[in-house]
Formats: sequence, C-alpha cells, structure tokens
Amino acid sequence: MIKTVETPRPSRPAFLGELFEVLTERGRRLLGRRGAGAATEAPDLCELGEALLSRRGEASGVAIAQGLLAAFEDADEATRLAFLQNLADRFGPDPAAVRAALEAVQRDPEDGRAIEALHDAAEPRRQELFRRLNLAPGGTAALVRMREELLRHLKGNPPLRRVDGDFAHLFASWFNRGFLVLRHIDWNTPASILEKIIRYEAVHAIQNWDDLRNRLQPTDRRCYGFFHPQLVDEPLIFVEVALTEEIPDNVAGLLDLDRQPIEAERASTAVFYSISNTQRGLAGVSFGNFLIKQVVEELKAELPNIRTFVTLSPVPGFAAWLAQQRKDAMSELIDADQRLAFAVLDDPDWHKDPAVAESLRAPLLAAAAAYFLRARDGKGRVVDPVARFHLGNGARLERLNFLGDVSANGLKQSHGLMVNYLYDLDRIEANHEAFAERSAIAASDSVKRALPASNP
Amino acid sequence: MIKTVETPRPSRPAFLGELFEVLTERGRRLLGRRGAGAATEAPDLCELGEALLSRRGEASGVAIAQGLLAAFEDADEATRLAFLQNLADRFGPDPAAVRAALEAVQRDPEDGRAIEALHDAAEPRRQELFRRLNLAPGGTAALVRMREELLRHLKGNPPLRRVDGDFAHLFASWFNRGFLVLRHIDWNTPASILEKIIRYEAVHAIQNWDDLRNRLQPTDRRCYGFFHPQLVDEPLIFVEVALTEEIPDNVAGLLDLDRQPIEAERASTAVFYSISNTQRGLAGVSFGNFLIKQVVEELKAELPNIRTFVTLSPVPGFAAWLAQQRKDAMSELIDADQRLAFAVLDDPDWHKDPAVAESLRAPLLAAAAAYFLRARDGKGRVVDPVARFHLGNGARLERLNFLGDVSANGLKQSHGLMVNYLYDLDRIEANHEAFAERSAIAASDSVKRALPASNP
Amino acid sequence: MIKTVETPRPSRPAFLGELFEVLTERGRRLLGRRGAGAATEAPDLCELGEALLSRRGEASGVAIAQGLLAAFEDADEATRLAFLQNLADRFGPDPAAVRAALEAVQRDPEDGRAIEALHDAAEPRRQELFRRLNLAPGGTAALVRMREELLRHLKGNPPLRRVDGDFAHLFASWFNRGFLVLRHIDWNTPASILEKIIRYEAVHAIQNWDDLRNRLQPTDRRCYGFFHPQLVDEPLIFVEVALTEEIPDNVAGLLDLDRQPIEAERASTAVFYSISNTQRGLAGVSFGNFLIKQVVEELKAELPNIRTFVTLSPVPGFAAWLAQQRKDAMSELIDADQRLAFAVLDDPDWHKDPAVAESLRAPLLAAAAAYFLRARDGKGRVVDPVARFHLGNGARLERLNFLGDVSANGLKQSHGLMVNYLYDLDRIEANHEAFAERSAIAASDSVKRALPASNP
Amino acid sequence: MIKTVETPRPSRPAFLGELFEVLTERGRRLLGRRGAGAATEAPDLCELGEALLSRRGEASGVAIAQGLLAAFEDADEATRLAFLQNLADRFGPDPAAVRAALEAVQRDPEDGRAIEALHDAAEPRRQELFRRLNLAPGGTAALVRMREELLRHLKGNPPLRRVDGDFAHLFASWFNRGFLVLRHIDWNTPASILEKIIRYEAVHAIQNWDDLRNRLQPTDRRCYGFFHPQLVDEPLIFVEVALTEEIPDNVAGLLDLDRQPIEAERASTAVFYSISNTQRGLAGVSFGNFLIKQVVEELKAELPNIRTFVTLSPVPGFAAWLAQQRKDAMSELIDADQRLAFAVLDDPDWHKDPAVAESLRAPLLAAAAAYFLRARDGKGRVVDPVARFHLGNGARLERLNFLGDVSANGLKQSHGLMVNYLYDLDRIEANHEAFAERSAIAASDSVKRALPASNP
Repeated sequence: MIKTVETPRPSRPAFLGELFEVLTERGRRLLGRRGAGAATEAPDLCELGEALLSRRGEASGVAIAQGLLAAFEDADEATRLAFLQNLADRFGPDPAAVRAALEAVQRDPEDGRAIEALHDAAEPRRQELFRRLNLAPGGTAALVRMREELLRHLKGNPPLRRVDGDFAHLFASWFNRGFLVLRHIDWNTPASILEKIIRYEAVHAIQNWDDLRNRLQPTDRRCYGFFHPQLVDEPLIFVEVALTEEIPDNVAGLLDLDRQPIEAERASTAVFYSISNTQRGLAGVSFGNFLIKQVVEELKAELPNIRTFVTLSPVPGFAAWLAQQRKDAMSELIDADQRLAFAVLDDPDWHKDPAVAESLRAPLLAAAAAYFLRARDGKGRVVDPVARFHLGNGARLERLNFLGDVSANGLKQSHGLMVNYLYDLDRIEANHEAFAERSAIAASDSVKRALPASNP
Repeated sequence: MIKTVETPRPSRPAFLGELFEVLTERGRRLLGRRGAGAATEAPDLCELGEALLSRRGEASGVAIAQGLLAAFEDADEATRLAFLQNLADRFGPDPAAVRAALEAVQRDPEDGRAIEALHDAAEPRRQELFRRLNLAPGGTAALVRMREELLRHLKGNPPLRRVDGDFAHLFASWFNRGFLVLRHIDWNTPASILEKIIRYEAVHAIQNWDDLRNRLQPTDRRCYGFFHPQLVDEPLIFVEVALTEEIPDNVAGLLDLDRQPIEAERASTAVFYSISNTQRGLAGVSFGNFLIKQVVEELKAELPNIRTFVTLSPVPGFAAWLAQQRKDAMSELIDADQRLAFAVLDDPDWHKDPAVAESLRAPLLAAAAAYFLRARDGKGRVVDPVARFHLGNGARLERLNFLGDVSANGLKQSHGLMVNYLYDLDRIEANHEAFAERSAIAASDSVKRALPASNP
Repeated sequence: MIKTVETPRPSRPAFLGELFEVLTERGRRLLGRRGAGAATEAPDLCELGEALLSRRGEASGVAIAQGLLAAFEDADEATRLAFLQNLADRFGPDPAAVRAALEAVQRDPEDGRAIEALHDAAEPRRQELFRRLNLAPGGTAALVRMREELLRHLKGNPPLRRVDGDFAHLFASWFNRGFLVLRHIDWNTPASILEKIIRYEAVHAIQNWDDLRNRLQPTDRRCYGFFHPQLVDEPLIFVEVALTEEIPDNVAGLLDLDRQPIEAERASTAVFYSISNTQRGLAGVSFGNFLIKQVVEELKAELPNIRTFVTLSPVPGFAAWLAQQRKDAMSELIDADQRLAFAVLDDPDWHKDPAVAESLRAPLLAAAAAYFLRARDGKGRVVDPVARFHLGNGARLERLNFLGDVSANGLKQSHGLMVNYLYDLDRIEANHEAFAERSAIAASDSVKRALPASNP
Repeated sequence: MIKTVETPRPSRPAFLGELFEVLTERGRRLLGRRGAGAATEAPDLCELGEALLSRRGEASGVAIAQGLLAAFEDADEATRLAFLQNLADRFGPDPAAVRAALEAVQRDPEDGRAIEALHDAAEPRRQELFRRLNLAPGGTAALVRMREELLRHLKGNPPLRRVDGDFAHLFASWFNRGFLVLRHIDWNTPASILEKIIRYEAVHAIQNWDDLRNRLQPTDRRCYGFFHPQLVDEPLIFVEVALTEEIPDNVAGLLDLDRQPIEAERASTAVFYSISNTQRGLAGVSFGNFLIKQVVEELKAELPNIRTFVTLSPVPGFAAWLAQQRKDAMSELIDADQRLAFAVLDDPDWHKDPAVAESLRAPLLAAAAAYFLRARDGKGRVVDPVARFHLGNGARLERLNFLGDVSANGLKQSHGLMVNYLYDLDRIEANHEAFAERSAIAASDSVKRALPASNP
C-alpha cells in the first residue's frame, strides 16, 4: 500500500529552532528594557518568576518565560541552586488563601465545594509557575533539565523534595502515555537521534556505530522508542529487541557482530534485551511498562508467528546479595554445601575452567532462585530492582541462565547470571495484582525447582 | 504494525486508527471476560472507573480506559448523564484522606509539608481518573467530547460545575500553549482539515469551497491555526488574515470573490478579520491571545514591510445595547438628538438610502464610542465580548467603521458597525495591565473624539 | 518564519517556487545584459535556442533555459507558433553532419559504428534543445505545455509533426513508468490536488466537493494516481475504484450520494469505474495500462478477499455506429427484427417506459455484441476506443449492461449501454498477444451468446 | 534555504521494497511458467531481452523487466559479460530497417522526413530495451550497476563502447539536472545516507563518524548533494562546504576536530573543499558544474554576507608532471635555479625543516604557475584534471597555496600544493567560453606573477 512520499522529518526541530531565536530576541529586548542601565546585570530569577505569575505575565507570558529559562541556564550554579530553594520557600501555597479556605472547611466539613476550594488554594504557586514557564518555546525540555539539576541537590534538603513532588506531578500529566508517540528506530533514523541511542544505552553499552548498526539494521533486530512532541530529538525510553527462534540464554550471541541474521518471518520469539530510560529529569514518570506492552502489540500485529515475548535481563543485585549471605553465617537462604561451593567465586577466573564452572551451576542457580523467590529487602520488597520492574509489570520469572553474561560487568554484578522474564498478555493483569497485593511472585516451574532442596 | 511515526499528516491518524482497533478488540475481550454470561449487557461505567483507579488499572490501564470511553460513547444519553453526575458525587476527594490531612494541618498550621499533603488529599479522584482515561488511544479527544456534553448539562446543576472545573484544570495543562503547534493552513492543506475550517468558521460564514479558496490561496491571504499533537485533524482555533495596503473599513471588500489580489510584499497591513474557536469542549482554555501574537511574529519575520496589525471585528453587542438605551429614557449615554436620529433605524432598509444613512453616521458613531468607552455591564465590565477579548489582550480600539458590515447579520447585531483593534506589540503589555487593573481602555484619539459632545 | 510544519506536501512546490524566483531573476539579469538598450524588447526565441545549444549554453544553461521558457510563455500566440515552426525548420538534424555520416556508411554499409554515428548525426538538434530546456526549474512542465500548444496546430502542418515526434520520444523516456510514483488520493490529500481531480475527471463528471468526497472518503472507495517528481501537484492519470460485493451493472448506484458503504474487508470485487488522463501534452505516452495493473497488485496485497477486478465502462461509439447500421440497409450486423425494434430509440424517453425498455433489451444487447465482436472500423480495428484500450491491455469483455447509464450523455452515446471488462492477471498476457497479433477478442460466453441468432 | 525538501525517507524505499517483492514474485512465477521442467535453469538473458521488446513485453513489461534484471544480477560473471557482448552484437540497429531508410534518403537527400526516419531506424534496439528495463521497480539503479560492470570491460573491447554510448545517452536524459533534487545533508540526515557519504568521500577521506559529524554539524559547515527520485538513498554527487572569514590556504585547519566554529552569519567566504561523485555507472554524466552553481545560489540566498565562493582543491597531477620536467633536460617550463632547488624534494621529510621548506616556496610556486598556465598534455589540454573541471566550469585560478596539504597523499601527488579556484558568477560564462574556445585560462594576477621570470 502506498505511503505519502515526502515525510519531511527534519523540519520540526528546524522550525522550533527558528522560532526560538525570533522569540528569544524579543524576550531579551523585553527584559533589557527593565534592566535599563545595567544591561549586563543578570535578571533576578525570583523577580521574573513573580512577574510571570502577575498581570504582566498574562500579556507577555511567552517572553518572560523564555527570559527566565534563559537566565536560569546562563546563571552560575549557586544562583541556580538559590532559585530552586526559593521555589520551595517562596512559591509554595499562598498562606492567606489557605487560611481562608481552611476556615470555610471548618465551618462545614461536609461541604464538597469548600474542600475543592481548599484543594485549589493549597496548590503551590510554583505549579502555575511551571505551567507558565512551559509557554516558552523549548520550555518543556528546559523544565526537565531544571528538575534534573534539582534531583542532584535533593539529598539532605527536604524542602526541595516538595518542589520535586510538583515537578513529578506535572510531568506525569504532560508525559501521560496518551501524549507519547511510539517510533521505530532503525538505520534510516536521523543520526542526531541515533547518537543519543549510543549515549543513553544503559544495559549493554554500544561500542560504536558498527555495533549500533548491528542492533538496528538486520532483519531480526528492532528498536522502538517513545517520543514526546515537545522533545522531538530525544527518545524518552527505548527498547532493543531481537527476533529469535528460541529463548536465548546469553547475551553475547545476540550482540555478536558476525552472527547470521534470520528472516523476521521465521522468528517465534521476541527478546527485549535492553531497556533504557534517557531523561533523568523524568525520574518516577513510568514509561517502561507501556513501552513493552505496546511493542508486544506491534510485533504481534506485524509478525503473527511470534508468540513468545521475553526479556533477557541482568540481575544487578545478585552478587552483592550473595556476598552478604556468605558473610552472614545465620542465613537460611544458602546452605552449607553451597557455601563450600561458592568459595571458588573468589577466583575472578573461575568461569574459564569448565569443570569449576560446572561445579557451580547447581548451587548458584539454587541461590538465584532463593534470591528471587525468598529474599526480601529492608522494606519487604524483592531485592532485585530489575525484577521489581518486570514482576510489577505482570511478567513471570521464566528462566535462570547460568553464565548468561560473562563480561566483566556481568561477572561482577551477578556472577554471570542472567534471567528471562516472560510477558504473557493474558496473565499480566493477574500477575500484577498478585504481586502488588500479596507480593506473590509469578515464576515458572523450572525456577521454582531450582530452589535448594533444603528450602523448597 | 507500526508505521513511520511521523509520516506526517495522514498517516498518524491511520496509525492511531489501527492501534485503536487492535487495542479496542483486546479491551473488549478483557471486558467481555468479566461480563461473562451477559455479553450484551453494557458495562457499568462507574465500575470501570473504579477499576481504572485500582490495581488492575495499573496493569491494564490502556485497555480499561478505552473500554470505558467506548462504553460511554455507546451509551444512551441518560446513562451518560448519570455517569457525569457520578463523577461529581462519587469521584470527588477521598473524605477519609481529607480528614486526616486536615487534622495534620490543624496540629501545625505553619507546616508547609502538611499543607501540601492536604493539597494532594483534596484532589478529586476524577482528576486521576481523567489522567488514566487519557492513556487510551484517542483518549484526549474523547475527554474533550465528554466535557462538551457536560457543558450542555451545566445549567442548574452545581455539582457538575466541580467536574467541569477539573476538566478545565487538566485541559489548561494539556493544551498549554507550549504543546500547541502553529500551522499555516492553505490550499495545499488536506481537504479533511479544510472542511473543518468551513464548518467551524463562526464570524463570516464560508459559503462553499470557492469561498474557502478565496480566503486561502491568493497571495494576500493567510490562515493559521493551532493544532495539538493528540487532535491531529482538528485545528483548535484559527485566524484568517488579509494583507492589505491600508486598514480596511468594511468586510465585503475583503471577501469579494472578484477582487484583485496584491503581492504580499506590497502589503503594509495585516488584518485579522476572523478568529474562530472550534472545540466547545475546550471552553475557557485560552488560545486566541497566543495565536494572534504568534501570527504577528510570524508575519513580521516573513514580510518585514508589514508594520500595522489590526483586526476588522464585529460588534455583536451593540444593537441590543442601543435598543436598551433608547428604551431607557434616563440613559445618559445617548442624548436627545441621537434619540431622534435613531428613529430611522426601525426601518430595516435605512442603510440603502444614502441620505438617510449619512444622517445616521455621526449619531451612531457617537453612540458606539460611548458603548465602548463609557458603558459597563452588570459586573462592571466592558459590554462587548469581542472588545473584552481584544482589549484584554492589550490591543487598542483604533477605529469605528460605519456600515462596515451590511449583511443581514451585521445590520441586526450592530447596525452595520465594525471596528478595528490595533495590536502594537510594544504597547500590548501596558495596555493589558491598565485594562486588567483599572479597566482603562486603550483607544485612539479618533475614537475618543467620536464621543458625543454632551459626554466627552 | 513558519512553514506549515507538518503539512508535508506543499514543501516541494514551495521549494521549486523559491528557486525559480532566484534563478529567474538571475536569468532575466543575464538576458537583460544582452538586451542592452532595449530592455523592453522581447528576446528572440530562436536566438535563445541557439545560445542554449552553444558554448554559452554549457556555462549558463539553467539561466538561458528559463529565460527561453519564460519568454515563450510571455509571447503572443503568433510568436509562439513561429517558434514552433522554427523548431521544425531550423532545429532539425545538422545537414553537414548527416551528409558526412551518410558517406561513411556508404563506404562500408556493414560498419556498425558508422551506422550508429549516422544515428547520432541524424538526431534533430531540437532533441538536445529540449533536454537543455529541461534544465530550468519547472522545465518539464513548461515543455509539456509547449507540446500541448503544438498539438493544437498539428492539423494540416506536417513539419510540426516531426517536432511532435521528438517531444513524444523524449516524454516517453522521461515519463517512463519507472519514474512514476503511485499515490493513494483520498480525503487527506491537499485540496490543490483534489481540485484537479474535479477538473480532469472525464468519464463521470464530478459535480462538486460533496460528490468528490463521496468518491474518496467512504471505506469502499479508492482513488489512485500516477505522479511524476517534476510535476508534483499534477496527477498524470487517475483511476476511481469502488469496492463491491458483486460486479455492478449500472453507474448510478455507484455514484449515489446516499448509498450505504460496506467495509472494505467484505468486498470481493474492485470496480474501475473511471480512468482519466490529465495532461494533453503527454498524449501518446501510455499510463493507463500500468496504472490499472499496479492498482490491481496494490489492492490484492491490501485486501486479499478481493478476487475480481473489473471495469464499469462506457461505450462511447455505440450509438453512432448503430445509427449507421440502421441507415445502411445492407448491414449484416443487425437483422430485420432488430431494425424494427430500434424504431422506438427515436423517442428520447423510450427508457422511461418499462415495457418499451424491456422490448429493446434483447435486440440492443445483440447489436452490442455484434458491435464488439464483429464490427471493424476503416483500419480494421475494433470500433470502440474504450474497448481498444482495455482489450489491448489484455482484459476480457465480460458483460453487457442494458441501461447501465441513463444519464443524458449515457443515452446519447450508447443508448444507456455500459460494459464490464475483466482484468484477470493470469490471462492478460495471452489475451494481449492474441488481440495484438490476430485481433482476437477475449469475451465471456455470455457476451458471445448475446450475438444475434442470425450471426452467431 | 533548502531543507531536504522531499527527504522522502523511509516511506518511498519501503514502498518500493514492498512493491518489488510483490512484483518479483509474480515475475518469477511468470518466468518459471516458461521455464517449465527446469525450474532451476537460469533464464536466457537474450531471450528475455527479445521477449521484452516483443508483443509480450507490451503486456508484461514490468514483470519481464524485473525478471531479466534479477537474472542478470544472479548470473555468474561470464554470463553477465556474454550478455553485455550480446547487447553490442545482437541489439544494435535493425539492419533491414536501416537499409530501407538509407534508400529513402538516397532517393531524396533533402527530404527532412526521410532523414528523421533514418534517425529512428538507426537507433540501436538496446536503447528501447533499456527503456523497457527501466519499467521494473529499481530498474534505474540496476541499469546504473549494469553500466558500472560494463565500464570494467571496456578496455580493449570496442563493440562494448557502443553499448556504453547508449547508456551514456539515456542516462544523460534520465539524470538531466531538471530531474535532480538538491538536498542539504546534515546531522539530521538518516544514517543510511550518511554512511554513504563516509564511503564515497574521495578527496579527504572521512575517518569515522566523529570526523563526519565535524563536517556536518557545526554552524559553519554545510554539505549538499544531488539526489534522483529513483535512487532515493544514494547521493549522486555531494560537496562539502566550509564557511570562513577568509580564503583558507590549507586543509588541515578545515578538518581539525578541535577548531572553534564561527557563526554562519559572520562568514564572508564559502569554501568548497571536497566534491565527490558516487556512481561510477554514471560516468560522463556531468553533475559537478550544476551542483556548485546551485549551492552558490542557495548560500547567497541564505547568507547574504557571503560574497566569495572558492574551492580549496588538490593538484593531483603536479608531482608527476614536475618529475617529468626534471627528467627532461630540455624543458623550458622550469629553469636551472629551480632544478637545483628541487633536489631537496627527493628527501621525503623536506617540508619538516622550515628553512628547507622556505627555500622551496618560490621555485615550487613558479613551477606550479607554469604547470597551470603553460603546460599542456598530449591532447593540448591543461594537464591537471581538477583544473580542467573548474576552469571548464568558468572558475578562475585564484591562488597557489604552498604546503596546503602536508598529508602523505598531499605530499606525494603535489608536494603539498593546493590551490583555490574562484567562482564569480558574473564572470563564469565569459571564462567558460574563453577556456572552451581558446583554452584561455582565467587566473588571478598573483598566480600570473608567480610564473618564473624566465617565462612570464
């Protein structure tokens, strides 16, 4: 079927770029007018914030917004931090309004309208400030960067947490899945986007452009990302997919530059072997769950032969957890035989001697099963963060892969262990509910059977 | 199957269309599973709403959201109204949470964190419901339609006003100017969009496609609209512009199918002669102000010779107001001579006799000046709604045009009067502030001079 | 400046438009420089042609080419005709070169190289001239228009035929099917293209935009056109298709504005009910054959349920032919009973009386069968031009439809007769060869059976 | 400014790709049907060629064309060469037709029509064959590859030259500048095109993607290419441009990864420092001339401050020529002092010693001036091929740059010499004519002054 021939890709960024220039110039002029004698003096960020929330802000919102954002980005770090602090202190809810609204509620605690008026009055003023800053061309991206900076200062600064909460609230609305666009990323994608894939890949680093092409161009490789209309050149999250004939048990085979691709139509299995978020400033806004599920739908529609959807995932918390168990003589999660066997792990080359490696297989997989099915962290949660993500999505722990990743990093974080999580759309909802409500972990029989006999 | 995401216009709807089908089918299956024996029974909308806000909603949000939206659109009117009512009654703030948060504030009224926790607790649950409904493909458009329906039931139904307030709050965020895209609409625009321009034009009705072409294709005509990425085929607002050599004083000349276009480079003046909002469901979300100002920037950049930006605007409240003054013997806004002169207005053909018309020019313009500069409505506001819009944007009332619109509608609503509002970017901010704070009306000397001598 | 960010289509013309301006200005300057004192004097077209073929033409080809084309279009009709005549007389083969090449061939008539050198020498100089004119932006379109003008003067002007032959030769190469792009034309297509569909539709006139939408937007309607990269806004040919559940026998049902569309997936049959060429200047360059066959392939790929591909075609030569037979008392193609029956045809309202109409069915269809299967024109060809086109493409005459088109035109040209031609890809080649070599006409049994008993 | 106007990126290739599959399958089926018992036997290429020129070819042209092209590409080298040979021997002009046409001309040597009929008769049949092969999707590209192969066999095979002439003739028509599209190539261009820029860069090799980005992304770098609608992913030729504040005298500074870019608006000079053709199969079809001139126009329109357009060019023939002069004791183009000075050239490190290098500056530049202004090759032409290209385009030899390229290759081919050619649009035509007609070389005074005193 025919497709419109002239996809005009690059134009949007170009367009915004131009617009930005036009408006910024005007923004500068406007601001300069006030700066008067001291053209070189930096504008006061809080003053600009107040201006943006004032009457003037209604008339000249776009210009003031971009003035403030530009001034923030030009400022030195101390000034920026001071502004973030001011967001917490000076741009909270209006105390007088809150007081009045509270009194109304106290007069009639059952009055729905009063409660909702209280809700409005208690909205921190910075929420409206952020909405107005978003008027500026490029405003959304600038606000995401502003929060990224905020996150670096969060530790030990409780007031900033409130600012962060407002960012998170607004971003959850603005980056609602309904506003995201799924795009196929391939070798025809502009280089300006592809270089970001290289930069942001967080799971299995992309060495260079040949490595990248090897993940995008072959017939049995796919990559999808979510994009937001306001951040055109930036995937928010992306997933790399391999189409295979069976569930893979190691990653080296998938990334091999010399492997022979298969035809997509022959594949029975789609393997999500890397998922990377790209925007720290969007921390806490969840995309991965939606991305995986939509890609499953896409692939099912395109390639009806694919019936199995799994990940090939790292186990980043395993080695640290195991070290702890070995130190903790009282641990019930590993037994004496295992302790003995694990001694060889202290030799970094243990995996190179097939006999040694083989002797570790059973005890290590047993420990891994306990790690997933039995161990809990201080908050009572599954220890492994990747497991929490996939199990929380409703996936099932399908298989433990001994020596699935023998890279230095793989050995260090998980003694080479990798796992597959299975996405079975018909069971996702039940799995998710059981996990969320009862911490019940969906696992295949093979995983369950791997538990040590002492602790079934 | 996925399609090149930004294959620009036609494909995206197609893409969403396909996706919608895929997901809806799944949504139906999911929902059907619960409906069990009674496949034909309509799902309960409130139950679906609760499901969407529950654990299940986290796992199957997209499917439940589209299930609910589809069921709402399929339901009969009574069912839909009942659901809207339920949004008010059952999806307000969680009372227990509000109570607890209130107590915390009462313990320490200065605790910023407690106040912000109260803000969160007092958020009506329907806000989160709307955000989750927006997960569905086409969800934004469906919510806009839902509010359009709500607006029809608002009168005499105060609880629904609270629901409306939440819609307005969310839409203001989602349709923030930062998320809108300005597009030139011309004769190369897809017919599917152009037919909406015909349908939505609210000021000077477009008779047919020839009339439309006459407003888009000539070198001295422009049309711009704001679009939102989620409503691809729908302009949210659009403005029609004529490029001229002087400020026009009547609309017939602009719309004349036989007029001779001029070269755009020769124009000194851009005339905004029609601005139309298209989505009733977005009532109260303000676009016009931004649209006019951005179009001014665009035109300045493209055609530096254009230095005057004016409207040619109707005066929809004038005739009714004048009738009132004539009835009100005590009115000080018209004098005895004017009263006498206005008698001929009762003859619908008065404007056809040049002598009669001429005799009315001065008294009518004097009354018009008073209408704008002196008259106020019950709330102390300028009477004319179009004037409130442009003066509120910071424009200046520039000229009164006697017999500027002799169409039946023009005569009926304003005895043929039209006016020009001038957008001078350097004065917009000051005008806006003066108008907002002191109801001060920016008007040219010629308008001021038109005031009756008795009431200068 | 804004450019219709995602309106994709217009960009190409816009681009060429700009370029054209830039270059034309330069072209004018260049030409003006020569024009010296007489800036207002029109440049001599032949002189420009010689310049373009000269050394200067190598350096400044683009500018001279557009200068010549602009001057041609600005010239009055007599000047243009004179130039066309000069193309015949002064831009033929170079006589000296031909003479030399001929002598070489005569020295050795077997020398392949000499023969090919003769081929080169005998090439009319206007071919190279046309190729160089094509350097100008918009050159291809200008040459197509030039030939369109030439065609109007062809009659009685044999030398111009040679010019026409060169145009035809070059256009066949430039508009090779390999350079054409098939595009789906639908309600999302730019209005600037759609208005050309309205203008060019040659078979069943499109009344207005509602009629057009009715042919494009319903799920069971399609329209496809061939476009050439150099004529972006102009379909070269387009076909309108209806998707139906059975082979239709009349056109009114297809064009009915009130009919109920079916889902495309339910259709078993694709009906090509209108094919229109748009560019007179491309007369003789054949597109229709390729268009139909490619659309068949497209539809088969998109809608596998469609297995029957037919036309619903007019029979433009039938009424005139039948009138001749009736006049010709000796005609063996109609018999005495038929003659008698045909008398009622002289009443223009014959078809309104069911009994009368029914009495004509058999004799008229018998005559129609003879018209297709027996009658031949002076050159021994099938009489009907539409039949020659489809039979030449390899289609089969499938069915005769009595009163298939009761519009005034349909009654006038064919007494309401319409026919279906069937495109069966597996038989096209054999049918085409048989028709081309032996004038053998592929027809269904039902058509053959309709032949009068007297002439089976 | 150009923006990849029709960057038709993914959609067109995808489209053609799909189509190709559909049709090829059909093509194979068609061909297989004839192959009968021997499905595995390769089809006879000449037979397919004859079929394509026959009646069958009219009906099934697309399928046969792609069958022939696929079979050619699948065949072994000997089979392919045999087919090329057959194109020369069996697909020349039809001898009988030529004979008849010759006789007609001999009867009346003045008969224009007869001469043009002779032209037609003498057209080699392979021209029509190529036109019909072009019907196949991807046909143009396949024919370009076929000629690329032919070119490798040309040496010592005169009959193949005739085939090559026909390719050249058709390609000149199909790749007429009017059908080419200029596109800006930048960092937003698809990687699939960018990797071809890396592969095809012929002047200053691109080391890797960082080097590429350094030539595309900075504000003061541009790259433009000509594309043909039928070869969407393949630039036919591209030019790399640096925007600078003065005419550069060495290439290392331009390619330096660490240099500081300037703003484009500050540049006064555009430097074409690399032009690369990409398609060997299009040898002899001239693009470079048009490309440079159009890029000059584009840059003038976009950046009016740029007034100087120059190249920074290699001098590939200089070292070899100088070696010859040094061997030839009789050469008048270098004098005794120069001979003496040139002795140090035999030390490959001569340029590293500033004193030695400085001693060579004057004699080497004098020799260079003589090389350009005095020396001629056996055919009386300027010796340097790059000089022939730019001087032939009408450029002027502007400056000789001593040690402009000290890379190994630069030293080897030209003892480090680089030159600038100046494109002054107002003088191009005159320069071109003088060069073409009188071999007069446009050179700046500084170049002329560099001639040795002995030979001014």
